[in-house]
Amino acid sequence: MESNSILIENTLILDGEKMEKGSILIENDKIRELSKDINKKEADKVIDGSKKIVIPGMVNTHTHLSMTLLRGLADDLDLDTWLNDHIWPMEASLNEDYCYAGALLGCVEMIKSGTTTFNDMYFYMEDVARAVEESGLRCILSHGMIDLGDAHKRKEEFKKTHHLIEKCHNSASGRIQVAYGPHSPYTCSEELLKQVREEATKKGISIHIHVGETRTEVQQVTDAQGKRPFEYLDEIGFLKEDVLAAHGVWLSSEEINIIKKRKVNLSHNPASNMKLASGVSPVDQLIKNEVVVGLGTDGAASNNNLDMLEEMKLAALLQKVHTLDPTSLPAEKVFQMATIQGASALGMEKEIGTIKEGKKADLAIINIKTSHLTPFRHPLSHLVYSAQGGDVDTVICNGNILMENRNLQFIKENQVLELAENAAEEMLSKN
Amino acid sequence: MESNSILIENTLILDGEKMEKGSILIENDKIRELSKDINKKEADKVIDGSKKIVIPGMVNTHTHLSMTLLRGLADDLDLDTWLNDHIWPMEASLNEDYCYAGALLGCVEMIKSGTTTFNDMYFYMEDVARAVEESGLRCILSHGMIDLGDAHKRKEEFKKTHHLIEKCHNSASGRIQVAYGPHSPYTCSEELLKQVREEATKKGISIHIHVGETRTEVQQVTDAQGKRPFEYLDEIGFLKEDVLAAHGVWLSSEEINIIKKRKVNLSHNPASNMKLASGVSPVDQLIKNEVVVGLGTDGAASNNNLDMLEEMKLAALLQKVHTLDPTSLPAEKVFQMATIQGASALGMEKEIGTIKEGKKADLAIINIKTSHLTPFRHPLSHLVYSAQGGDVDTVICNGNILMENRNLQFIKENQVLELAENAAEEMLSKN
Repeated sequence: MESNSILIENTLILDGEKMEKGSILIENDKIRELSKDINKKEADKVIDGSKKIVIPGMVNTHTHLSMTLLRGLADDLDLDTWLNDHIWPMEASLNEDYCYAGALLGCVEMIKSGTTTFNDMYFYMEDVARAVEESGLRCILSHGMIDLGDAHKRKEEFKKTHHLIEKCHNSASGRIQVAYGPHSPYTCSEELLKQVREEATKKGISIHIHVGETRTEVQQVTDAQGKRPFEYLDEIGFLKEDVLAAHGVWLSSEEINIIKKRKVNLSHNPASNMKLASGVSPVDQLIKNEVVVGLGTDGAASNNNLDMLEEMKLAALLQKVHTLDPTSLPAEKVFQMATIQGASALGMEKEIGTIKEGKKADLAIINIKTSHLTPFRHPLSHLVYSAQGGDVDTVICNGNILMENRNLQFIKENQVLELAENAAEEMLSKN
Repeated sequence: MESNSILIENTLILDGEKMEKGSILIENDKIRELSKDINKKEADKVIDGSKKIVIPGMVNTHTHLSMTLLRGLADDLDLDTWLNDHIWPMEASLNEDYCYAGALLGCVEMIKSGTTTFNDMYFYMEDVARAVEESGLRCILSHGMIDLGDAHKRKEEFKKTHHLIEKCHNSASGRIQVAYGPHSPYTCSEELLKQVREEATKKGISIHIHVGETRTEVQQVTDAQGKRPFEYLDEIGFLKEDVLAAHGVWLSSEEINIIKKRKVNLSHNPASNMKLASGVSPVDQLIKNEVVVGLGTDGAASNNNLDMLEEMKLAALLQKVHTLDPTSLPAEKVFQMATIQGASALGMEKEIGTIKEGKKADLAIINIKTSHLTPFRHPLSHLVYSAQGGDVDTVICNGNILMENRNLQFIKENQVLELAENAAEEMLSKN
């Protein structure tokens, strides 16, 4: 629902920097005022925030939204079989309609679990943009560029990316931005990576890339370049603070130093790294080294959902058992990864990620009157360790209410489920 | 709601052995008929099962239900600090009322996430039994016995256990059973363990114990007994097929052989083992050795919820990343752990754990018309990797509907939340 002003009153306001009781006044797309005074102010719309917590809309720093259509297609397989026998054959029959349907389904799922911003890389991105525009979410979109050394393919990839930039960058009232999306250092040539670096700097556009996800990939790059992935990328001048590198599972100490020095941002994807048995990213160590690490779900095909509340729990638990240290990655840190650190990783920390006057009104309201959040003692602990996506009650993005009391406001949920179900069935029938 | 006969029609029936479309007729406490014929039969109550999956009510093989009251009390701490500075001081002020309130809260949470049977060890167990009786759930209760070598304490523990057996074993229409609950080989003397073994055999009552949870504990036992925990327990003749050992994280090959040979049942608790940084149980290896391994949430203080759907995902993902093999513990196996293997681990496989004519009517009905379960392709994959507790729509235990369309039928949910909140606050104020 579009309202010029919204008041969330008498609530518990929680972000990675504070926890306080009060009310939030939203005007147009921004947070106008935070106040301890719970007296009703003039507002077009008043939301009762009692027995609820308001948190920043969560930031999913790495996903492939249209892959939501491939959810549950194949599981429990080694990466090669999964890709070669299932994902790639299915992706060969992708088209505009399927990517739109998958993206819209993903938007519904993200809204219903409290995510308001996501960072996406995939194909048919203009159709993803169409879904995002309708959904009311905020995002950075990138076309996944792969040239495998082929100059013709490289030219095509830049053409697609530049078309996407031209058509979608800063569209949908500024909610949609575009980034360069070179897939990875093992699927992109040095020429492609260097050209991306050069044009990104020139245009002031950020970069989204996969680096260091699997041991195999690190070995491939090391064999080809004589250096580990981040060493190689640093040597060709690719790494700057506008780069978001997804995964960063297998990192040498030298690579951690490079990441820190170049202020590269990382996206940690615990569910995907666990499910595909890729390995464990040294997140606790990275954060202690002051590296900015956001949280991501990766695509639904390797997760198999887009629930950032679940992802927070996985991240915290995985670090603890991996380091055999229960103090690793405490609730507060992992909550920051899902909010302000994620915003920083995308270069959006001035606009989103905390609840502050003047920032964009991107908020999720969580219902706490439920058995698994009782007794209500430590809100942060409950959000990270006990909550589930379905506890999200209301979601606001850019000052618009996208969901209220679990009912979507802009999107007809049942129609989207049907559209996605039909698209998935049609795709499957072609394979 | 008590009905003599219930028909769940036109649904998808899924257990660890089959997946088929059809209807389920329940008469009194049992499944009377499974049928492909979806014609309406005579039944006191008809439930529309379309767009839903029916699974066996899940079996939580290890928990401490009243600890639900300690949820979120303290997190991200090393085990010693957590126990000494937080859990034990709080437990010192436990009483009948608090344990009843915590248990009732736990029952609500389990019903709302599809669990119908649980295996509990704690204190004030007669008050836990009172909560279970009201809730309609099925369970095995044990008083946690700890003597630390003190003969007087030992006598008291047996007295409490025998009183519990006398009062509660086979009570609540057979829904409540009692087991012996010697806490562990490092907190119980050899005398206690031997006496438990002897009386358990004599009375035909099972045993619930913690074994091999942490490295520290294994070291303690090895220092004291010159043998690892399962070797020691085997030597004193403790291990038989009526024993459920929780955790089994740190196991030598010799211990795995002993577990297999003695047909000891294990309960795997991945969330707790990860959160407390205890380590990773070699579940994949145990199952390949034909050991019966059920799934458990442990107490909410170290999880911090009782959601068996979440626990399934954690179990599968943890094995995969630990072994660096994505084929480890596939969805089907982990679903069996949460159902029929759990039932077997508790010696109840003839009564519950699958959906069969003649078995007890313990069922959970899952709503699949939701964004994170769309497209609906592989039901098992969706349950393990994509679902959340809130997807459970209706729960039946012993032929009684405990929850319908997410509304509890026997328990007033709001009253329980208030009771638990007040009890937790009162406990905290005493510390």
